[in-house]
Amino acid sequence: MIITERAQRVRDRVMSTVKTDALLVSDLSNIRWLTGFTGSNGWVVLDPDGLTLITDGRYGQQAARQMAAARVDGEVLVGATSPLVMDHIANCCSRFPRVAFEAAHVTYAQHAQYAQAITSELVPATGIVEAERRVKDADEIERMAVACRIADRALADVIPLLTTGVSEAQVRNQLETRMRELGAIGPSYETIVATGPINAALPHHRPTSTPIEEGHTVIIDVGALVDGYHSDMTRTFIIGGPTTLQQELYDVVHTAQQAGLAAVAAGVSTKELDGVCRRIIEEAGYGDWFTHGTGHGVGLLIHEDPFINRAGDTILQVGDVVTVEPGVYHEGFGGIRIEDLVVVTSDGCHVLTKSPKDSPCLQLPPTT
Amino acid sequence: MIITERAQRVRDRVMSTVKTDALLVSDLSNIRWLTGFTGSNGWVVLDPDGLTLITDGRYGQQAARQMAAARVDGEVLVGATSPLVMDHIANCCSRFPRVAFEAAHVTYAQHAQYAQAITSELVPATGIVEAERRVKDADEIERMAVACRIADRALADVIPLLTTGVSEAQVRNQLETRMRELGAIGPSYETIVATGPINAALPHHRPTSTPIEEGHTVIIDVGALVDGYHSDMTRTFIIGGPTTLQQELYDVVHTAQQAGLAAVAAGVSTKELDGVCRRIIEEAGYGDWFTHGTGHGVGLLIHEDPFINRAGDTILQVGDVVTVEPGVYHEGFGGIRIEDLVVVTSDGCHVLTKSPKDSPCLQLPPTT
Repeated sequence: MIITERAQRVRDRVMSTVKTDALLVSDLSNIRWLTGFTGSNGWVVLDPDGLTLITDGRYGQQAARQMAAARVDGEVLVGATSPLVMDHIANCCSRFPRVAFEAAHVTYAQHAQYAQAITSELVPATGIVEAERRVKDADEIERMAVACRIADRALADVIPLLTTGVSEAQVRNQLETRMRELGAIGPSYETIVATGPINAALPHHRPTSTPIEEGHTVIIDVGALVDGYHSDMTRTFIIGGPTTLQQELYDVVHTAQQAGLAAVAAGVSTKELDGVCRRIIEEAGYGDWFTHGTGHGVGLLIHEDPFINRAGDTILQVGDVVTVEPGVYHEGFGGIRIEDLVVVTSDGCHVLTKSPKDSPCLQLPPTT
Repeated sequence: MIITERAQRVRDRVMSTVKTDALLVSDLSNIRWLTGFTGSNGWVVLDPDGLTLITDGRYGQQAARQMAAARVDGEVLVGATSPLVMDHIANCCSRFPRVAFEAAHVTYAQHAQYAQAITSELVPATGIVEAERRVKDADEIERMAVACRIADRALADVIPLLTTGVSEAQVRNQLETRMRELGAIGPSYETIVATGPINAALPHHRPTSTPIEEGHTVIIDVGALVDGYHSDMTRTFIIGGPTTLQQELYDVVHTAQQAGLAAVAAGVSTKELDGVCRRIIEEAGYGDWFTHGTGHGVGLLIHEDPFINRAGDTILQVGDVVTVEPGVYHEGFGGIRIEDLVVVTSDGCHVLTKSPKDSPCLQLPPTT
């Protein structure tokens, strides 16, 4: 990873937007993207002359090593206690008359603390590093592609387990163990396995001891974490079915998801893309059952810009990596969601998740 | 879980501190503690007449079900989009002239958004729910005790694996799989397995493919998550040793940790407790190698109040659940940390983590 030029891109954006002398970066994902540092405590001061990473005593060695590995030029300052860390931050910032801070990450209380310790004028700024971070480079996309292949493979290996009597938690455990065996650092979020009329009706259900039963829909939402980068995919299975309603709704969601994938391209607005999926579900009469947005960006975070829903109106760019994930949920019925992770291209998208979605029905073994 | 009275305790604290009509709670752990709701999107408005939980479309059903299960009286309002969620928050708050908000959790940018949407005077407040949440009740302690037993058992089962050629990541995978088999929802944080002169010198190392070798110290920092509550424990092993320095440093850290446990009691200041451990390590000549604080509170978060270090000066209370975890780290040597989780009592503490720490040396099988 050679990420030195990222600091310069952020400096340029600071100059062209908030026009301050320096930027105080406090979000850990932004710090990782800028420096390669993965610790849980850190700040970066980015000024015209350089980059300074400030952290506490647990991370001094690690910070220096990770910045060197990422070929980032910069200084590391270590404070043994929180007040000493704050002193370093204040000293680095106070050399400049105006310093921008990350208003979407700094809490109200932290801002009050900064304002007391730093003599510079503190200028709120939002989304500066995120705007540069949003479009992924080839290395980042490759990590996410590897993560998707791991999740695809783990899901394929676990599908034979999806039969009556097996619990959601057992399926989750197997998926997560398999992803690690295949090289993932871990799951990229809490794996969702949701079965039946109650649990599958919760879009963000956490796996329980509830067993899979005949007639259930089973939603599996699974991703792998590879070198800091996330994957995200959902498939829905129908156990021994389908009923007429299950088949109808699966077809509606599948059609909406295919239409969504077909609509992705640089230049398309996120609101427009959400509308493509939502209209199909609404026209089938199930608009009220589609209770979330169509997708979101994925990268160093599992949920990041751009968000694809009715409210926002962002224009997709080449190199955005986003999910397309319409779904329907209703207590008593259960739920169905189909989700892929795609890289936006100039005239469409490249789908990173490859698990099949044409044949959701899993037949039960014949009883004797 | 009957948690209705928690809202009343928080109301009383609001009245006696910031003296506002209502409190807008935005921290998800605080919301879980008040309502039982575990979703990733939510706000609570606590006013003299009641409690209102506001969330988005993904969580409407779940919120109502979880509040009922926790026997919390309150209303759930669902907004399909972020702006509609904000409308609900604004409507709930704007009925009151003065509303407190959680200044340590609300970002600078969110505060600006609230200030625009809410007509009330917004009063910054910190630590109101946390002050009530800090002291654990019997149900909470029991969940953490169960989590500790799971981590103890998983570690005991995995110790036979600690031999040359086995990687940090393999040990981590076995620990996490075992904890789940034993009933944990998952690890309570990223399990640390750090071996040898480089990796074990990093207090927060993330497991890699580095294999255990003869002569290594291996730090294992492992906890289980049970019904939202965390456990936290560290043990250090010496593979086929010890060298004189390893034995000396293990003894120093062990003595410091025992002294720390002996010093814990209600009424003791956190700075004083940190000093008990730190002085022993300093007097042995290794003060510079103890690069972090002595401990922290544990509960719905793995790190929460009270923090035990040189800087803070909090008085321990009966029912605080805290770690005692001195350690030494030095590149080239590696590291040693010993950590227990304890419940503070009026005259001492009750240690929840039970794994042995008297015999760190693991003998290698004889070579033929």
